[in-house]
Amino acid sequence: MGSDKFPISELDGVARFNQHGIDSNTMFYFIGDEKTITKELPNHNLDGLDYEIVHTSEVVHMDDEATVALRKRNSSIYKGIELQKEGKVDAFISAGNTGATLSISTILLGRIAGASRGTIGTFFPTMEKRPTLILDAGANIDSKPKFLEEFAVMGALYYKEMFQIENPKVALLNIGEEETKGNELALATHKLLKASKLNFIGNVEGRDVLFGKADVIVCDGFTGNILLKFAESFLVFLKQAIRGYADKGLYKKLKVGMFAPTLKDIFKEFDYQEQGGVPLLGVNGVVIIGHGSSTGRAVENMIKRAIEIISVNLNKKIETALSG
Amino acid sequence: MGSDKFPISELDGVARFNQHGIDSNTMFYFIGDEKTITKELPNHNLDGLDYEIVHTSEVVHMDDEATVALRKRNSSIYKGIELQKEGKVDAFISAGNTGATLSISTILLGRIAGASRGTIGTFFPTMEKRPTLILDAGANIDSKPKFLEEFAVMGALYYKEMFQIENPKVALLNIGEEETKGNELALATHKLLKASKLNFIGNVEGRDVLFGKADVIVCDGFTGNILLKFAESFLVFLKQAIRGYADKGLYKKLKVGMFAPTLKDIFKEFDYQEQGGVPLLGVNGVVIIGHGSSTGRAVENMIKRAIEIISVNLNKKIETALSG
Repeated sequence: MGSDKFPISELDGVARFNQHGIDSNTMFYFIGDEKTITKELPNHNLDGLDYEIVHTSEVVHMDDEATVALRKRNSSIYKGIELQKEGKVDAFISAGNTGATLSISTILLGRIAGASRGTIGTFFPTMEKRPTLILDAGANIDSKPKFLEEFAVMGALYYKEMFQIENPKVALLNIGEEETKGNELALATHKLLKASKLNFIGNVEGRDVLFGKADVIVCDGFTGNILLKFAESFLVFLKQAIRGYADKGLYKKLKVGMFAPTLKDIFKEFDYQEQGGVPLLGVNGVVIIGHGSSTGRAVENMIKRAIEIISVNLNKKIETALSG
Repeated sequence: MGSDKFPISELDGVARFNQHGIDSNTMFYFIGDEKTITKELPNHNLDGLDYEIVHTSEVVHMDDEATVALRKRNSSIYKGIELQKEGKVDAFISAGNTGATLSISTILLGRIAGASRGTIGTFFPTMEKRPTLILDAGANIDSKPKFLEEFAVMGALYYKEMFQIENPKVALLNIGEEETKGNELALATHKLLKASKLNFIGNVEGRDVLFGKADVIVCDGFTGNILLKFAESFLVFLKQAIRGYADKGLYKKLKVGMFAPTLKDIFKEFDYQEQGGVPLLGVNGVVIIGHGSSTGRAVENMIKRAIEIISVNLNKKIETALSG
């Protein structure tokens, strides 16, 4: 109920998944206001799909604090995670409020044995073939070195399964390459990562993020959140700058009009929609969170991601790694 | 001696300043390898300029640690700051190693009464007419709330003098707008800023940085450094992405060739060269640091900046504000 285009993107995503027929055994629960969902249903090709509508009357808004969201027990987020707790569904997917989804998931589903905190990452595009997973992206503000080490373990396992990479390169976001650089948290985390079984390649700096030096980059949620939001705003800034230039005269407008489609073409490659969403890691369940502006294609990818995570039994692997 | 184009940019900057004849009373000391400087001198119009060459035999490299740089007492940075300590010069300008310049300045010149730490900021371009000053940009990794408050006071005073703005808007970089958001440092700093005499507008997020919400944004040096380096790399990333697209075929190359000059034109507005450099704030002297790749125009602006800071007696104003 809380995404930008609910329920259009959600139903479009399911319809795309249904048409591509990847797994005919999947059953869907559409959770939210029944009238809104029913009204939109005819616009999507769900032929042959096994689904059920679960009505909820409350809405968790994007700016709701976790404490507020936790009291809305008849929201689509709460209900969906509750269904998973009851064993009725295997995975929950949402393009709604990230913090609320993390809090409700942690409380209802609990954490995987050995995981001190649940975490969520974000994919940054890179110059290489694969994106880089940065975590934590904002769930854990004051993190301890041990948490960051666990995030690295969970992130690397997820990355390995997702891209079929045997030993994903793990790095620590820091202000210099040398292990003597950094704040207290970074210095202590560097030591833990160096002593771990991970394929730790050392520190990377802000300037390395977009160039694919590492597959997985860990940082505290404060830094991760600021970096993520800044990066997202950069493209908005560029668009505004280009529009501002176009507004300065007809000739400039014509020039921009001519190259705008090409620029769009170039940026398309770096679109987060390709990734679709990221799982909550460390939570004892399968919960995929997407951007509030997720398109149908993004939602389709989120569904595929959930099925992959279940089929490779990611959480069991995380439990084994964290207890080792 | 440590900048990318030494001594070309440096001498070009002085020549530009000399031609524009803003202050005929300024005397220059060119500090560095005498042969290198003497050889380059004829390529620049220094007619009527009062200058002297001060020979130094050591070079502080860009990747020298501060501890290494401090031992190079015959470097251009050390010598230049020493001349200021001895009262022979009023300001020192460098496009060399920032960390080394800060350390040597702090040790030789000391700090302004009331300033717990020296700090350096960086200008981010914005959609508004003026750029935003973010500090600390990497000098103070583990900062205390009091340090950040002092950075805000010093940054606001500098911004006020530089842009003739009576009450610059000061903000705290954070992960949410509410004052209950943030890590321990941000929560404590928010309280201090709120209680201060500054024009504190509250928290801003990573997404707000480029849109001119605040004139001065404070953060710890860890976050500031990562953000600054990430931002600088973003344009490199874009250029590579566009080049990669052009390499995919002749038609694509032609399209890119057609719009590249326009894009360059658009980006020019957001070029840091316009600002020229930033002063070390909190140090008991006038030291301006520019980017290693500073052009002659940037160096000219650094000279103007130094003269401005001296003429408005910025350090005295900082001392008064910090002791108030």
